[in-house]
Amino acid sequence: MPQLQRLAVNPAQIYDRKIDLTPEQQHYLHRVLRLNNSDRFIAMDGRGHWWLAVLETQETGLIASITEEIAVNRELGVEVTLMAALPKGNGFDEVVRQAAELGVASIVPVTSDRTLLKPSPQKVDRWRRIAAEAAEQSERQFVPTILEPVSFDVAIKDCGQKYRFICVARGDNRHLWDCLVSLEPLQSPLIRGEEDGEELAIVIAVGPEGGWTEGEVKRAIELGFEAVSLGSRILRAVTAPIVALSLVAAAWEKC
Amino acid sequence: MPQLQRLAVNPAQIYDRKIDLTPEQQHYLHRVLRLNNSDRFIAMDGRGHWWLAVLETQETGLIASITEEIAVNRELGVEVTLMAALPKGNGFDEVVRQAAELGVASIVPVTSDRTLLKPSPQKVDRWRRIAAEAAEQSERQFVPTILEPVSFDVAIKDCGQKYRFICVARGDNRHLWDCLVSLEPLQSPLIRGEEDGEELAIVIAVGPEGGWTEGEVKRAIELGFEAVSLGSRILRAVTAPIVALSLVAAAWEKC
Repeated sequence: MPQLQRLAVNPAQIYDRKIDLTPEQQHYLHRVLRLNNSDRFIAMDGRGHWWLAVLETQETGLIASITEEIAVNRELGVEVTLMAALPKGNGFDEVVRQAAELGVASIVPVTSDRTLLKPSPQKVDRWRRIAAEAAEQSERQFVPTILEPVSFDVAIKDCGQKYRFICVARGDNRHLWDCLVSLEPLQSPLIRGEEDGEELAIVIAVGPEGGWTEGEVKRAIELGFEAVSLGSRILRAVTAPIVALSLVAAAWEKC
Repeated sequence: MPQLQRLAVNPAQIYDRKIDLTPEQQHYLHRVLRLNNSDRFIAMDGRGHWWLAVLETQETGLIASITEEIAVNRELGVEVTLMAALPKGNGFDEVVRQAAELGVASIVPVTSDRTLLKPSPQKVDRWRRIAAEAAEQSERQFVPTILEPVSFDVAIKDCGQKYRFICVARGDNRHLWDCLVSLEPLQSPLIRGEEDGEELAIVIAVGPEGGWTEGEVKRAIELGFEAVSLGSRILRAVTAPIVALSLVAAAWEKC
């Protein structure tokens, strides 16, 4: 299945297989996502139902028709971006594969104070193939997006996610778990997963071997990131992202 | 540090760097763990304090002296055993390495209906080296024990852990997270980690590619295992153990 954009809708908007889009949703689909007549997207009601929908331009504006229900939804109820420092060697292949398995929406490979080497375009292509393969094997609806590698400073400045975490080993930070379960959307089960008109989005930054430098952590915090702990053990750069994503998935899927 | 046995003690038992062992603890140390005069073990108060202690035989029985506090404790407050079906190929190396990083106490490699091949003694030695290496790199106090490979049926019959879980993909089982946080020791923070005289022990069985067969799940349930889910995604055999152990660690280390 090609990668489709998602839109959170209120169940009350659906009638007779049509979705009565609000002006804000029409703006979002057309102006932000750049979708046009006959383009497809996924409508989610925030209660676990997903539908494949197609846009129709009418005189009164855009409406959407539901073409089919997506029966088995293996996607996370939250859009999670992994911002990961590139490890030395080929370790990133396995990070991409496991992150894709675990439901990541996108991965931003970043160069950092401790890993300066920018990967070749061939490597990025390779990660995209791995992500597609892993998404298919784990029966996901989406292929995660692998973004172009950028520097950590550009990545933290550009990120649009509302909830931002940076994992820091050694130290007295709050456990990622505690931060996740205290997020407002997880406190109100009915909107779990989505907020009005836009999807809930989280970014988690995971460092290279040796961790982020103090300067990096400081700069991230200045840009709205919260420093979090993944527990008291020292994890390798290839393991930490998997732990972080396991916790995000469990926070959304537990009772 | 050589692998030491652990004993849960009540802080009230400690006075002037001596541990006043109960008759049950003396029996446990001497008869069960086979420790004698001048043998060392780790005393834990269940509140995050660990001490290196040495046994002394006295006329009145065994007592223990504290030789030093173990300042940085990276060990999990729960003894967790991973019972893992052997994947094809060399995938188990990475499972051992990551499980050791995540604080596993022991690993039981099992042959199963879908993976019949018994590994060579060389492979088992190799996993032990990897476990030792990973434990050192992640600054753990213990090296996890890699047990001799056995068949799944022998493993589930022999296991002495009080809390037993078997991970099953596809199906309607409770999420492992929900099972963990409803365990009695996690409900009462003061004894979190340990029960009187014996340490809290959990075993988690994770299947091969393709999962456990229905017969295996049935036989495990008959022997007191609870079938659990790791979420709605399809995970590879090398990823599922890491997800399970991430959840165990977070369940003990969150606030």
